[in-house]
Amino acid sequence: MKVVHSEAHRAHTYAHEVTGGLPTRAWETVARAEAIRAALEAVGHDLRAPADHDAAAITAVHDPAMLRYLETAWSDWRANGLDRATIVPDTLPLAGYRAGMGAATEPASPCGRIGYWCFDTMTPIVEGTYPAARGAVDVALSTASLVMDGASAAYGLCRPPGHHAARAMFGGYCYFNNAAIAAQWLVERSGARIGVLDVDIHHGNGTQQIFYDRPDVAYASLHADPMRMYPYFSGHADERGAGAGLDATFNQPLPAGADDTTYLRALERALDWLLDRTDGPLVVSLGLDTYRDDPIGDFALTTPLYRVCGARTAGTRRPLVILQEGGYDVATLGENVREWLAGVEEVGSVEE
Amino acid sequence: MKVVHSEAHRAHTYAHEVTGGLPTRAWETVARAEAIRAALEAVGHDLRAPADHDAAAITAVHDPAMLRYLETAWSDWRANGLDRATIVPDTLPLAGYRAGMGAATEPASPCGRIGYWCFDTMTPIVEGTYPAARGAVDVALSTASLVMDGASAAYGLCRPPGHHAARAMFGGYCYFNNAAIAAQWLVERSGARIGVLDVDIHHGNGTQQIFYDRPDVAYASLHADPMRMYPYFSGHADERGAGAGLDATFNQPLPAGADDTTYLRALERALDWLLDRTDGPLVVSLGLDTYRDDPIGDFALTTPLYRVCGARTAGTRRPLVILQEGGYDVATLGENVREWLAGVEEVGSVEE
Repeated sequence: MKVVHSEAHRAHTYAHEVTGGLPTRAWETVARAEAIRAALEAVGHDLRAPADHDAAAITAVHDPAMLRYLETAWSDWRANGLDRATIVPDTLPLAGYRAGMGAATEPASPCGRIGYWCFDTMTPIVEGTYPAARGAVDVALSTASLVMDGASAAYGLCRPPGHHAARAMFGGYCYFNNAAIAAQWLVERSGARIGVLDVDIHHGNGTQQIFYDRPDVAYASLHADPMRMYPYFSGHADERGAGAGLDATFNQPLPAGADDTTYLRALERALDWLLDRTDGPLVVSLGLDTYRDDPIGDFALTTPLYRVCGARTAGTRRPLVILQEGGYDVATLGENVREWLAGVEEVGSVEE
Repeated sequence: MKVVHSEAHRAHTYAHEVTGGLPTRAWETVARAEAIRAALEAVGHDLRAPADHDAAAITAVHDPAMLRYLETAWSDWRANGLDRATIVPDTLPLAGYRAGMGAATEPASPCGRIGYWCFDTMTPIVEGTYPAARGAVDVALSTASLVMDGASAAYGLCRPPGHHAARAMFGGYCYFNNAAIAAQWLVERSGARIGVLDVDIHHGNGTQQIFYDRPDVAYASLHADPMRMYPYFSGHADERGAGAGLDATFNQPLPAGADDTTYLRALERALDWLLDRTDGPLVVSLGLDTYRDDPIGDFALTTPLYRVCGARTAGTRRPLVILQEGGYDVATLGENVREWLAGVEEVGSVEE
């Protein structure tokens, strides 16, 4: 399979993330992407660098002011004499902050700006963050281009991931929403209704928010119930879209310990739902943090299931733009991605 | 002057706060309140403990679900096996999180719950937080009672402070909004229009939010421009109230380095504005973080000015419910409060 991969992610690295106010182990690491790359190279996938893309595809789904913030955050931080190694928010305008008072204004203070845009303390900005995030978007768009050019499936090794980034907010290790940018790009070029299948264990709140009121991109997600797991504030089964987008969002929250059988049934429901509502390529937000040994997940999936999941998804006979999201057990991450793609190719070879 | 003070605050203590994702010195300390108490005792003020009050006065301005959260947060944390010494949020539903998607639901996870309610990382919850916060409300209400019973002024040594706590959100070292609870209590009992004068260096976003659409409580604040300083997301001059509360909010953001002359002029404008719009007691949110040596402020006020400020405020001839908010230079905090109250008494003695 054609695999798109950028070196830009390597400069996006930091010593720790912040959980509950404490420095904790950083899970979203350079090693993750390198493990996947090595595993895919080893079995002969066709790796390539992405083309550069300008910002228009980003501002098609994100607030241009958020792009400007991410572009300038690090230089602004340093220009203001701030010497912390990472930019992490400490003060954030919750909905209750401005209840009845209208929208907040972006402050000038770099310490205030980060809280205006970023919803958690686990998504630090360092000098290499913006080029890495742009690189991940390039990967997503080049992967989508391969599919528009006729590939039945292509894989983009996006890092940082994207599905937690909303129109005017980022977080969850994500800066730009790679999958949403690719889906929007596909809508514009194909004229088709595009589906996004999100199989990361965490609800893709950003993708959902971006397309919540739109009928032309259908979003289906299976994930840990947000009552117990990050990102906590979206992903309930009764979130089904709004306005023209009503019934174009489909959430399946799953219990702790969800196993292969439970998961496969949920995946099949999601695929059926997507087939009913779309007629173009599917974008897959591929998270492997559903794996039983994932350090921040709580599902019980096994490696063989990923091959089945890839095959079932390819069984839709829709072109697949497969983009990397989470997955934090570095020891098995490459193998699990490889198996998912092997499942896709298995179906492809039957067809071709 | 009659001074109300509770011992309950002593159990609200923690090793550090979290700023920009790093553990930093805790400014809102037990020593602050004890320094004020010692300074006021030393000059013969009449100290007393507050009466206990039930929760009805709290839920008159706060979401009952927030009261329940604060009451149960610590036991819920421990019951879930979490062993961190403080509860600090890491994931928060910014307005952008749910844009177009309706309000968020409070999650069940204790790690999610804290982010649902608390808007910053500097306001930790420990075992003693809830009793201390209830104690501070008792102090505020007992101080208001003294004024309703005929005192021309009384001082409540509230700790934790309150003015950053909104109807359904807390933060900024604040849990319950002592001043707003007192103002609401005074509205209900006096039938008068009540003014709140907020002289803390930080904008009292919580008090503003609680009364933003109401004509019966007028809120006037002088503070550091939120473009450069905490709490960042409110306190602009064009925030003037809404609906029936239009023109019942008055914000005067001031520049860094604001000196005695600049400050006194702003105070006089605020007092004139309040006199025009109210006919009952004034609640004073008394912060001394405007002092030139305050470690987190950037104004240049001197100790003698606080006496002048107290005298000008008392010069309104309105009964004064003076409640402690911020002020973090512990070495001068007691003296500066003492001088403010001396200014009040100076005017009182001329009158009586």
